[in-house]
Amino acid sequence: MQRRDFITSTAVGATALAFTGCRRAEEKQTIYINKGKKVRLKLATSWPAHFPIMGTGVDEFAKRCGELSGGTLEIKVYPKNILVPALQVFDATSAAQIDAFHSGVYYWKGKNSAFSLFGGMPLGLTSEEMITWFKFGGGYDLWREMYAKFNLYPLIGGTTGPQMGGWFKKEINSLADLQGLKMRIPGLGGEVMKRLGVNPILLPAGDIFTSLERGTIDATEWVGPYLDKMMGFDKAASFYYTGWHEPGSILEVTFNKARWEKLSSEHQAIITVATEEMTSNMLQEFRYKNAQALQEMPANVQVKVFPKEVMDAAKKALGEVLTDESIKSDDFKRVLASYEAFVKLNKPWNDISTKNFLEIRG
Amino acid sequence: MQRRDFITSTAVGATALAFTGCRRAEEKQTIYINKGKKVRLKLATSWPAHFPIMGTGVDEFAKRCGELSGGTLEIKVYPKNILVPALQVFDATSAAQIDAFHSGVYYWKGKNSAFSLFGGMPLGLTSEEMITWFKFGGGYDLWREMYAKFNLYPLIGGTTGPQMGGWFKKEINSLADLQGLKMRIPGLGGEVMKRLGVNPILLPAGDIFTSLERGTIDATEWVGPYLDKMMGFDKAASFYYTGWHEPGSILEVTFNKARWEKLSSEHQAIITVATEEMTSNMLQEFRYKNAQALQEMPANVQVKVFPKEVMDAAKKALGEVLTDESIKSDDFKRVLASYEAFVKLNKPWNDISTKNFLEIRG
Repeated sequence: MQRRDFITSTAVGATALAFTGCRRAEEKQTIYINKGKKVRLKLATSWPAHFPIMGTGVDEFAKRCGELSGGTLEIKVYPKNILVPALQVFDATSAAQIDAFHSGVYYWKGKNSAFSLFGGMPLGLTSEEMITWFKFGGGYDLWREMYAKFNLYPLIGGTTGPQMGGWFKKEINSLADLQGLKMRIPGLGGEVMKRLGVNPILLPAGDIFTSLERGTIDATEWVGPYLDKMMGFDKAASFYYTGWHEPGSILEVTFNKARWEKLSSEHQAIITVATEEMTSNMLQEFRYKNAQALQEMPANVQVKVFPKEVMDAAKKALGEVLTDESIKSDDFKRVLASYEAFVKLNKPWNDISTKNFLEIRG
Repeated sequence: MQRRDFITSTAVGATALAFTGCRRAEEKQTIYINKGKKVRLKLATSWPAHFPIMGTGVDEFAKRCGELSGGTLEIKVYPKNILVPALQVFDATSAAQIDAFHSGVYYWKGKNSAFSLFGGMPLGLTSEEMITWFKFGGGYDLWREMYAKFNLYPLIGGTTGPQMGGWFKKEINSLADLQGLKMRIPGLGGEVMKRLGVNPILLPAGDIFTSLERGTIDATEWVGPYLDKMMGFDKAASFYYTGWHEPGSILEVTFNKARWEKLSSEHQAIITVATEEMTSNMLQEFRYKNAQALQEMPANVQVKVFPKEVMDAAKKALGEVLTDESIKSDDFKRVLASYEAFVKLNKPWNDISTKNFLEIRG
């Protein structure tokens, strides 16, 4: 590795030098120093301070970068709306007002519809499969190419694992039961639901519980048992549907590209492996805490699977959405082609390995 | 973080000091230095040099430690039988003849039967679930406590993902078809198969293909499509059974504990995150290359699922093996209790999330 770091004598180092003189210090080899110039980066998130798993995950990531670099890489995490509004972190990083952000990839569909595919797809790849696509199936190359046009360099920065399908006040026994239902559901999932007759509503996080409780909305999706329970949804609705529309949502730690390229290769490596640890820890923390929260659900909560009729219609509607988006955007079409090539490669192996094993295990 | 590193002036640094004098160097802050004493560690593996995925994975891990530390942490990887025979790496590290090893946890059952549980269990947790158990379910605490008695400090160092059930020369349609079959199958899987009437055989890797081809053995398990195809098994047998006995085998990077504790907290952190990256990369590389290899299997290969009768008998036999081992060893009983508590917690969530989603996705 080519080292691009140069010495910054610390106060301790300078004191040692002053007391012992240069040659003696060299012989004794006991001067305490930093290994390079201290780099301070500002990272803004789309979450409240220390928000469970997502927020604590990025806190740990920043701390880890400090540990790995011997304190030469200091990443200061700013919760949403402190430096930058939650959903302006992309623009602020692109414009180099801040150095980096931590957010969900699904938020940036308005920038380029293709970006939604890097965040995950309804009825698509799981978190683990998404990461394989990024690393081995060409996903990272496309993501970085397309983000580069916004002067951004993205890294996977956590993932939620499989999410739930959402909370409904009434049981869904047929497609007919979905007609006109007001449901808080964003993204591609919302577009599919719209084609199934649902009225998708966007609401700020703080308003969802009250809207559901009062019946202003009939249903909402959020994440999974752990975070959903924190929102109190089990007190406002009883029918908890299994997941289909967010099987593996990808979060990102994304840097201003010019800033990233100015980092030493050592600091780049440190950030990269720290995001790997963050991604693994987040996935496992979600698994563990979702399992715990599910166990603690009150007795009124009934876990339900959508009728086959609904899922079949969702698959058909998703196909239409993807076709429409591919016609509108060449980027979308290119990313979808890469994604679908990996889906095709992965499916036979997943069918005879993980899927088959989970059936055998019982 | 408490820094425990002290300067070792490098040749470049020493030269710069000599030329510029101490005060000027401090002011200019341009002396090139290492951040601490160079640490050199010897790590022996149980694999041939650069063995695909396992061997290349540990090569990348060592390289990454160098990058992350600015070259101050040099881990030299010794393939099997260079410094230490493949299956003596545990003892050699325990005795501090080498600093660390990379191997499969299932090899050390003879040291303590409980260790087999840290390596994975037939019909048990997947790789991803195993890691959750280690990190959140108490697995790491028990592993480290029990390895400490051997003066060892273990880290997860990769995992294979779901393995296949093995290659059979004849189709297995019933329990009767297993009677007297000579099969190369080690570990807990072998013990279960023994109770089902199979004659489990241990063979060196280099002898398996010829034994299968000549009919000296009737069946063998190995890993999955990618590595199995490299062994040529598709040319010696046609019935390829889906997996049940190694759903998520754990590999380890394990250090001599006293040596580990002498490392700076920075080097410890570097090694820890580098194993996280290694584990993620290995799992994804296995997924991708198994998917590719499965696609390229010759037409004679038929993928089969064991009859329900066989899997039911395997579950029953496994229960007996676990009961027997628990009676013999308190350590085994303790680890099994922790493992089973996590299985119980995880199952309802996995059933309604990953398992259910894979069924819905189709």
